[in-house]
Amino acid sequence: MDPHQQPVNTNAGKSRSKEAGVAEPTLPPPDPKPRPGPELARKMLSVEESMAFLKKHGLSVVKYVVCVSKEDLRENTSHLKFPLVMKILSPQIIHKTDVGGIVLGIRDKNSLLSEYDSLMERIKQNAPEAKIEGVLVQESVLGREVLIGMKNDPQFGKIVVVATGGVFVELFNDAVFRAAPVYPEEAKEMISELKGKKLLEGFRGEKAVSINALANLISSFSKMILTREDLLEVDFNPVIVNEKEALVADARLIVDCAKSPSQKKQPCGLDAAHAKTRIVLENLGKRSLDIFFNPKSIAVIGASRDEGSVGFGVVRNLRTGNVFQSGTARPFKGRIYPVNPNADEIDGLKCYHSIKEVPGKVDLAVISIPAKFILQVMKECADKKIRAAIIISAGFAEHGSEGAALQEEVLKLARSARMRIIGPNCLGLIRPSSSLNASFAPAMPKDGGVAFISQSGALVDSVIDWALEEDYGFSSVISLGNMADIGFAELFDWFAKDSKTRVVTLYVEGVHDGPAFMQAAQRLSQKKPVLVVKAGRTSAGSAAVSSHTGSLAGSYSVFKSVMKQCGVTVVGSIDEMFNTAKAVASQPVAKEDGVAIITNAGGPGVLTADYCEEAGMKLAVLGEEVLKKLDSSGKMHPAYSRHNPLDLVGDALPERYSIAVDLLLAEKNVNGLIVIQTLQTMTDSEKDAEALINAHKKYPQKPIVAVFMGGKFTKKGIALLEKNGIPNYDDPSKAAKAMKALLPKRGLKKYVF
Amino acid sequence: MDPHQQPVNTNAGKSRSKEAGVAEPTLPPPDPKPRPGPELARKMLSVEESMAFLKKHGLSVVKYVVCVSKEDLRENTSHLKFPLVMKILSPQIIHKTDVGGIVLGIRDKNSLLSEYDSLMERIKQNAPEAKIEGVLVQESVLGREVLIGMKNDPQFGKIVVVATGGVFVELFNDAVFRAAPVYPEEAKEMISELKGKKLLEGFRGEKAVSINALANLISSFSKMILTREDLLEVDFNPVIVNEKEALVADARLIVDCAKSPSQKKQPCGLDAAHAKTRIVLENLGKRSLDIFFNPKSIAVIGASRDEGSVGFGVVRNLRTGNVFQSGTARPFKGRIYPVNPNADEIDGLKCYHSIKEVPGKVDLAVISIPAKFILQVMKECADKKIRAAIIISAGFAEHGSEGAALQEEVLKLARSARMRIIGPNCLGLIRPSSSLNASFAPAMPKDGGVAFISQSGALVDSVIDWALEEDYGFSSVISLGNMADIGFAELFDWFAKDSKTRVVTLYVEGVHDGPAFMQAAQRLSQKKPVLVVKAGRTSAGSAAVSSHTGSLAGSYSVFKSVMKQCGVTVVGSIDEMFNTAKAVASQPVAKEDGVAIITNAGGPGVLTADYCEEAGMKLAVLGEEVLKKLDSSGKMHPAYSRHNPLDLVGDALPERYSIAVDLLLAEKNVNGLIVIQTLQTMTDSEKDAEALINAHKKYPQKPIVAVFMGGKFTKKGIALLEKNGIPNYDDPSKAAKAMKALLPKRGLKKYVF
Repeated sequence: MDPHQQPVNTNAGKSRSKEAGVAEPTLPPPDPKPRPGPELARKMLSVEESMAFLKKHGLSVVKYVVCVSKEDLRENTSHLKFPLVMKILSPQIIHKTDVGGIVLGIRDKNSLLSEYDSLMERIKQNAPEAKIEGVLVQESVLGREVLIGMKNDPQFGKIVVVATGGVFVELFNDAVFRAAPVYPEEAKEMISELKGKKLLEGFRGEKAVSINALANLISSFSKMILTREDLLEVDFNPVIVNEKEALVADARLIVDCAKSPSQKKQPCGLDAAHAKTRIVLENLGKRSLDIFFNPKSIAVIGASRDEGSVGFGVVRNLRTGNVFQSGTARPFKGRIYPVNPNADEIDGLKCYHSIKEVPGKVDLAVISIPAKFILQVMKECADKKIRAAIIISAGFAEHGSEGAALQEEVLKLARSARMRIIGPNCLGLIRPSSSLNASFAPAMPKDGGVAFISQSGALVDSVIDWALEEDYGFSSVISLGNMADIGFAELFDWFAKDSKTRVVTLYVEGVHDGPAFMQAAQRLSQKKPVLVVKAGRTSAGSAAVSSHTGSLAGSYSVFKSVMKQCGVTVVGSIDEMFNTAKAVASQPVAKEDGVAIITNAGGPGVLTADYCEEAGMKLAVLGEEVLKKLDSSGKMHPAYSRHNPLDLVGDALPERYSIAVDLLLAEKNVNGLIVIQTLQTMTDSEKDAEALINAHKKYPQKPIVAVFMGGKFTKKGIALLEKNGIPNYDDPSKAAKAMKALLPKRGLKKYVF
Repeated sequence: MDPHQQPVNTNAGKSRSKEAGVAEPTLPPPDPKPRPGPELARKMLSVEESMAFLKKHGLSVVKYVVCVSKEDLRENTSHLKFPLVMKILSPQIIHKTDVGGIVLGIRDKNSLLSEYDSLMERIKQNAPEAKIEGVLVQESVLGREVLIGMKNDPQFGKIVVVATGGVFVELFNDAVFRAAPVYPEEAKEMISELKGKKLLEGFRGEKAVSINALANLISSFSKMILTREDLLEVDFNPVIVNEKEALVADARLIVDCAKSPSQKKQPCGLDAAHAKTRIVLENLGKRSLDIFFNPKSIAVIGASRDEGSVGFGVVRNLRTGNVFQSGTARPFKGRIYPVNPNADEIDGLKCYHSIKEVPGKVDLAVISIPAKFILQVMKECADKKIRAAIIISAGFAEHGSEGAALQEEVLKLARSARMRIIGPNCLGLIRPSSSLNASFAPAMPKDGGVAFISQSGALVDSVIDWALEEDYGFSSVISLGNMADIGFAELFDWFAKDSKTRVVTLYVEGVHDGPAFMQAAQRLSQKKPVLVVKAGRTSAGSAAVSSHTGSLAGSYSVFKSVMKQCGVTVVGSIDEMFNTAKAVASQPVAKEDGVAIITNAGGPGVLTADYCEEAGMKLAVLGEEVLKKLDSSGKMHPAYSRHNPLDLVGDALPERYSIAVDLLLAEKNVNGLIVIQTLQTMTDSEKDAEALINAHKKYPQKPIVAVFMGGKFTKKGIALLEKNGIPNYDDPSKAAKAMKALLPKRGLKKYVF
């Protein structure tokens, strides 16, 4: 096939246009490599269609008229104010400037008419094949140019894109994203995130544009795009903004002819998700997840005597709390029923040959059998009226279309039996406060305030091993697997109400139901901090993700923007996530910004000040009065720094620390404190730790973060701090990040659905 | 005083101009708050002066003529090609556009003459006070606009600034820096770092500009600014670059009238530094630092019996290797002479009442006495012919002008006695391979390949404590203190030749002799990797630094650029520095880019791929042949990933790791390997570690970095890796950073002076 030949358009749009006797435009897809199939069913809306659509949704456009002839031009442009702009209209001409199809600055009617002739001449020469439908005549409006557009994200649906004018977005990637709908306050936040925002704020003596007008236009745009399912691309380029108004000067809307252009009856976007979630929850019972976290009896289907097997691991984890021995593990206090047709006893417990034989009620089934037996086992579980199942077995959606079909069958069966599922293809669930290790992880971490929800099971194993060494506690650890039934959203709602959980941490590879995720994340983040690490953010990572779990990896920029919209903090690494979570799980959020640093070494104090400033924190100024108090304590070194960072000098003993910490925490403008201790020969880490612990008791509303730097001779002091809820970091950069997480976020009103 | 009144100019420039009968321009300083004193001695060079200066140094300027009257204009512009540009010339008019002082696009002589009249009329109205010296008439040159300027940096001297046109530099801070001189290749590197470089590369169908012409202009500019000591500000805005040439269209040069405008006789910039360093080294003997690292006898002046004192700590550290007991410490094998007028024995060693009483030769004096006694003690040391002193005592330049004067005296005394000094106000020096702990640090770390030079003594203490816990080794640890004599530069040259050192790490607060630092860093970085953490990068941090050590904190952007120019890697934190140093100290640098990832868990593999791609590394593609070999090993899991990252699946035993690691390392396009291990119940960390250790022996030229994630049940395997020189990291983000440091840097030819 000749690659230059136009592909034959076989879609409905084409047929319709043939009937109407008008050549519908067949646009090349934006991808340079034309792809087969539905990609070709693209159609650009005409000016009239576009304008009608915009007006209907209250979007202001630059005053215009469409003229089909010179006559028309002469007679029907009198209501427009010169200077005018004239643009060629042809379905075949996408980039008008390329063919000389735009005339700017037309000053009077004579020029308009003569420019019309020249325009037509140019087009005839430059685009002889183009079918000319007329010209668009617009008033010239002065102002800054902004681009507003739409992007269909595979995870989060319709995304609003706002960017500074042409050159900036191309050269500096100056574009920001939000999932639709975007409320005016959020639109203002978008504008404030533009690198080129100075252009809008009165750059080089120009008047500032109306941010309100622009924000309202963005918000209306975001609602408008939710009303049509068939929109593929929307570009308003440019939108003109001046001190009075924001007007669309050019709109390019491309629809998928294969989809219905008619307005949907159902609510869209977040509203649709809301409706959907509500229905699901109503059908299944709102608290149907409780049983996973606090079951009284558990059947292990696929229990095994082989000590290396998953089926053995689960039994051992339930019976003792761990496979590899650790001090924090505790045996499950309810009943455990191993099920295996070929065994009578497993790990000292009586084994049943089938779930049917198990006496009494079973709250939770943990299933670890080959995928081919799953339907039979699920049916038996349904008969046994089991309402909760953790399916550890692999071989489902992650394993091609056959596996996906099987997973669908399993879900159908579960729905009809009112049974909820975690998994399949997961590691299981751990709830230390319920002495529950319903997983094949090697051990159970200690109880704590951090919930961890992971799309990678293997990661959970390593995190637990790390937690044992670091004495790090979790309220719950959940491996989600393929999320056939229970996904992030429902767990968010459950953890929002869980009194054991102070902060929720997430490892995300891909989100299946974006709108439900966003909604629930918004609700959760208003109650507790939520931190997330996203894998599959680059093309290399995404390629790996898709083969790994079949998740769709969306654009990382979009992900980050949507998380911001939901109040979720995106962190760069797992390490950073748990470092930050530790702080927010044990320390209060400060009333407002204002950080003081106390140190016994200048260098680390300076570095910490750098990190704080780089992260946008405010360093509290120490006033004369507090300095006087420090002086009159009689315990300061003559060369102590007398400003923030407060350098107590290397010979600081615990008493000096104690005085300084107490005096600074009493200051009104000190809302958070970072305390650095380097190891000098006279340093007493444990006593210094006690000084901090006591101060925290006196000022429980002000967060304290420690940087006791060192190892061998510092670890006792560090252990004491951590045991008493004061997070310690080995490097000032980590402490600054933790403090940042403990400062209140600038208050963007949240919309809860 | 009326703030609007022009300050009275009392400088030489003013006097000179009065004599000549011409009003010299008195420019306001760029700072909005006018400062008193020498700041006022600013003068803008005239067009003639500027052009002569530029031409002399081979810089091309847009063709121009200066005309002082309409007559002149009529007669002397015939050699210029229309269209022309005309600009007002007046010492009082700095921003010509503000007063309508520029006319663009003049198409013929008649217009030129009439525009001259309008221009004069406008200036009379808009700037009635301005004394008009004439007009500058230039040819119009088409092309992209670039800004080239100079900045005086307190640490590194004259800095060349290159930026994209006006709006871009203001909105996006699109400017790059280098210390002068800049060679054409470096200038190209600068251009390639501009965010707006696409503008120069043929943006939107335009022709690409001549990068060579621009680079040559930048290079000539950089050499030109080194020839005049009196330059305060230089701005070429704009420079016009097109496909043929780069021409200066506007030059604004401001000089300090208090300084001599005459060209210096001595070499400037790096050349000057070179000369200076050479003289110093010739006077003092090139290897005069050796004695610090390998002395045979040491006197501790200010030795003390008080166990909490510095004077006791130094004696104990020499005698046993540490104050706090640790396994890696070793006693000094040479002679130790404690000196204290009031003691006969200290820590079991005979004590001398003065240095004069010490029998035999003393190689090194470690001095810890109050500052007021220092001159007397230094004289005694000089009499004793001691050639090396570590002055731990504080109370010098860090303590105001009196201390600074004392420090100067000490230096003078040392110079006359051919004695070298580390300090004052420092912690001392540790050289594990010489069993030398000439410091008051709490302990001695184990021997290793990392040298650490620190401007903070307290940080050294904590780093050593951390190193003991992490089993991290150092070739040397040096606390520099006030750097009265020995600074970074000389140590760089020493470490370049030190066979024990494989990588040099730096904690820098401020550089005193920038050019010498740059020079020596360039020499060192060509032999060994150099990593640096800079404190005092923000205004908060800088304020703290200046009170802490009196160092001048320069702009962090300039610092980063200059380090790049020197081949030094700037890292964000101490943590990151030592993590990276560990890798480069124990692993080879890869021949070229191309990284493979092997994992037993999808999630961390994906994250690692993300980090690699984000850091600009290339992920090796695994070809059909290597996949065939993996398949035919018979040891792969049916669902192993078959691409990079190579996911071996959770049940991978050491044998599978071993096969995969060996096969991938044998691949030509795999030049570095990251191996991830998460803890599954069947994982054998120690055996997995052995597989890596063996593979490293087979392929010693390809760097391997491990991410054995976990803690309690993984640490034995990790310890085995580290003991055998395979660096392990607890988080994929750190491993990716380490691998990045192990890839060859893109080859910019280095200029060694």
